[in-house]
Amino acid sequence: MTYELHYWPTIQGRGEFARLALEAAGAPYVDVARGPESHGQGIRAMERYLDGGSVPRPPFACPFLVDGKRVVGQSAAILLYLGPRLGLVGRSEADRMWTHQVQLTIADVVTEVHDMHHPIGSSLYYEDQKEEALRRAGDFRKNRLPKFLAWFETLLERNPRNAGREVPRLVGARLSYADLSLFQLVEGMHYALPKAARKALKKAPLVAALHAGVSRHRRVSAYLASERRLPFNEEGIFRRYPELDR
Amino acid sequence: MTYELHYWPTIQGRGEFARLALEAAGAPYVDVARGPESHGQGIRAMERYLDGGSVPRPPFACPFLVDGKRVVGQSAAILLYLGPRLGLVGRSEADRMWTHQVQLTIADVVTEVHDMHHPIGSSLYYEDQKEEALRRAGDFRKNRLPKFLAWFETLLERNPRNAGREVPRLVGARLSYADLSLFQLVEGMHYALPKAARKALKKAPLVAALHAGVSRHRRVSAYLASERRLPFNEEGIFRRYPELDR
Repeated sequence: MTYELHYWPTIQGRGEFARLALEAAGAPYVDVARGPESHGQGIRAMERYLDGGSVPRPPFACPFLVDGKRVVGQSAAILLYLGPRLGLVGRSEADRMWTHQVQLTIADVVTEVHDMHHPIGSSLYYEDQKEEALRRAGDFRKNRLPKFLAWFETLLERNPRNAGREVPRLVGARLSYADLSLFQLVEGMHYALPKAARKALKKAPLVAALHAGVSRHRRVSAYLASERRLPFNEEGIFRRYPELDR
Repeated sequence: MTYELHYWPTIQGRGEFARLALEAAGAPYVDVARGPESHGQGIRAMERYLDGGSVPRPPFACPFLVDGKRVVGQSAAILLYLGPRLGLVGRSEADRMWTHQVQLTIADVVTEVHDMHHPIGSSLYYEDQKEEALRRAGDFRKNRLPKFLAWFETLLERNPRNAGREVPRLVGARLSYADLSLFQLVEGMHYALPKAARKALKKAPLVAALHAGVSRHRRVSAYLASERRLPFNEEGIFRRYPELDR
């Protein structure tokens, strides 16, 4: 069964968390909105789920995953759904809930990263909320980023399966979708706020080690080097505006 | 088994979504941080989970639920965990995923409501970000609130089990935790932005009917009339600042 991932075709954004899981597992999927309209793909195929009158349970926004008749929106819910199917989460309910809880906190950071350049509203351009963005970014760099990274570091310290391992994992001994998402978060921070990220990661060496380890994962590194990996840019969640990284 | 709910003792906040589920199901629970320190409760009991060095899987923030050895943070994850145990979600995986997806979108609205009065940072007072709050609230009232309510209205319209029913449900025919949370969201909007809420709800009559129906639920109405229900105030998520409701 080929999964359909629906997300904006020109940015990594929130779709990248699902994409990384599909790629790391080597799962068959179609990135629908990036495909040709002549094959029934493209943005219009995505918009039919969002705006069409015939979807019984329409997602609020993209990304969403289509698996046969199932339509799953919300990036953390997509991973909750894919995790067991792709072997990217532990088998016990406790491990699954905990991995999801970590993922929801990563999603909270992602929202804060987005709101750093859009503190007033998504309907306005960055330039029209730049003054507010400067203030919000200061708070994010000073308070929020260190607090979140300290929590992830604590989780890695307290995972008993990390003892003696070069590459730590967030949950248990095996790679989970939360590890992939934390990798992506660190990758995004290095792009968007290189100075602040470097400084904050000095105090989170296990997070940095996880990031480095995931980047060497065979399928992940092949994906990152491929054309399927869109480059970061100033339309996505992680944007490089140097004035926000003083 | 008595559940322990840990949340700030003086506000409804994000804890209220779990509290409403526990109350509607008549489940035994202790609101730990509101209890006496002499009984091992109070804020310190909560803080031991957040700051203590001995919790293997510490939540990032409250609210969190303790059920024996299980600790579950993130309000949507708490409801994902409680839903099947309290009979507040359907039995199929499809219903459970869909209910959770709706809950995650409610959580997104709650974050936007919070950021309406704190667009720059939680570490600052409202008064120190009031100008920014005025702008953000305008965007929320004009764009975001109507968009979210229109989506909830669509879900209620498309739920085939709502045909001919006075009180619609978000998923299937029975009360779910998502119904309770949407009730709380509407209740909070009536408190925080009474003018904007009244206007927006005119275009979402099914959402208004759901809200009215939940408020008449036997256990919910008893809870709302009890001292266990904290009043809304200007420390919580939903704050009445008249200047944000023009």
